[in-house]
Amino acid sequence: MSLLVVGSVALDTVETPFGRAEDALGGSATFFSAAASLLHPVQLVGVVGDDYPVDALRFLAERNVDLAGLERAHGESFRWSGVYSYDLNSRETLETRLGVFADFAPKIPEQFRDAEWVFLGNIDPELQINVLDQVHQPRFVACDTMNLWIEIKRTRLLELLGRVDLLLVNDAEARQLSGNSNLSRAARWIMDRGPRYLIIKKGEHGAILFTPHSTFFAPGYPLEDVFDPTGAGDAFAGGFMAHLAQNGRVEDGDLRRAVVYGSVLGSYAVEKFSVERFRDLSVDEIEERVRHFREMTMFELPVDAGV
Amino acid sequence: MSLLVVGSVALDTVETPFGRAEDALGGSATFFSAAASLLHPVQLVGVVGDDYPVDALRFLAERNVDLAGLERAHGESFRWSGVYSYDLNSRETLETRLGVFADFAPKIPEQFRDAEWVFLGNIDPELQINVLDQVHQPRFVACDTMNLWIEIKRTRLLELLGRVDLLLVNDAEARQLSGNSNLSRAARWIMDRGPRYLIIKKGEHGAILFTPHSTFFAPGYPLEDVFDPTGAGDAFAGGFMAHLAQNGRVEDGDLRRAVVYGSVLGSYAVEKFSVERFRDLSVDEIEERVRHFREMTMFELPVDAGV
Repeated sequence: MSLLVVGSVALDTVETPFGRAEDALGGSATFFSAAASLLHPVQLVGVVGDDYPVDALRFLAERNVDLAGLERAHGESFRWSGVYSYDLNSRETLETRLGVFADFAPKIPEQFRDAEWVFLGNIDPELQINVLDQVHQPRFVACDTMNLWIEIKRTRLLELLGRVDLLLVNDAEARQLSGNSNLSRAARWIMDRGPRYLIIKKGEHGAILFTPHSTFFAPGYPLEDVFDPTGAGDAFAGGFMAHLAQNGRVEDGDLRRAVVYGSVLGSYAVEKFSVERFRDLSVDEIEERVRHFREMTMFELPVDAGV
Repeated sequence: MSLLVVGSVALDTVETPFGRAEDALGGSATFFSAAASLLHPVQLVGVVGDDYPVDALRFLAERNVDLAGLERAHGESFRWSGVYSYDLNSRETLETRLGVFADFAPKIPEQFRDAEWVFLGNIDPELQINVLDQVHQPRFVACDTMNLWIEIKRTRLLELLGRVDLLLVNDAEARQLSGNSNLSRAARWIMDRGPRYLIIKKGEHGAILFTPHSTFFAPGYPLEDVFDPTGAGDAFAGGFMAHLAQNGRVEDGDLRRAVVYGSVLGSYAVEKFSVERFRDLSVDEIEERVRHFREMTMFELPVDAGV
């Protein structure tokens, strides 16, 4: 049940009210892999410059992240720097230097082309389509996107939507893409364009999963100390896809559980800078929060108790 | 298991993108009673001026809202008018005319003083305390408040918190009251001041119930057409308190179910202007949404299936 991710591998400089991290491991493929690999092996495709501290990725390789698709190009690595507001609810991008990422043309290694579970991280929809042209018969394809592509690559993005099983976006992106401020209506609009499934992330307010059969609401995992929100969405995607790949099914019940695993991995992501929290996170800790999630959302109706 | 509500009985003039209602039935006690009385008898205490169309409240009296505590004073009734933004997420108050409400000194009729379940709608904390001084031995007291009282009547409000079982506020109010932007921390701060239970309402994002034993997250009921948000919070309180009064218990499981009933009644409130949606709402319709609520939030872990 191979799981492939294509996305950015970056160096992040992040400032939060609690401190600053300079040139830390970042990028969608990095966060996705760090989270997902706790549950399932991952095949990573991305590009870094010759300045990238590739050794720092060794902890991923040591737990079944296959880096055979990590291209090393001549030039500078993708760098992003940003500063978060005092309550962490907004952030300002200080600088984005694409470097070798500007000419990224994902080449899927031969041995990755049979991937069954595919996650297309937030990159240009043209490249996401290009990846799909290279994989043979994926069983389940999910993709992310962002406001920039919705704005400047709308046609290609809509073409992509016709070829994926699931779109994963935040509420602002769902509204922007559909032109509808009501999330239920926005969801219907998006699913009419192709994806059988849709997840709308609402940050601290949780996530909504839409399937043809039902809607599932997961709250945000309550944290008293959020340290650095960077990468939470990609860690969510990693937990979500890894749970599906691990179980090999996409029934509504599997997708719901996968949303919970995604929420839990996202909640751990924000507890430290960069991917630090994933270095020594245990499966037991993940399962503990999954159980807590259930405890926080369940209620019984008289009929359950046989009354 | 008598249920008492003390609050405003007003005339609202509301403008939404979908229309306008003039001098429509409004006020916290009105919305509370219209919602709660679908599930349980209610005793109402409030004041109106001699211009109030008291006949319009007859539909409440006809379904077990005891209006013996509705005082008719000489003067104008409390009037509020406001206009909602195009997406209904914000509103501007155009005018507040307190009228006879300015001198409201709640007098609890003798036959209401044994009330077991008491809801103190959003009025001056001094008056809320005054009500508590008049009831004998309530089993469970819940109260609402607002930014104005947090600002200008903080000391009295804190005094009140020491005497209630549950506080019901929205997220902005919880943050303002506690001086903490993190809701988990804000909740602990508030519960340290007295209330054993706390509900933080987050509008379309649902509500969180905090008890000494656990935290419960309920999503907002998803609606494609929100017509008029006025009164949703008081209808929530009505559904919540009526479910408790109906069952006579306040175990965590009861409180969780009550939050769901509150959310459902709140969701119906916004489908029409004023209390219109409650005129012919059936218990079956309420139960249907409660079941849908459960369907939207449940997920199974392998252990549930005995795997």
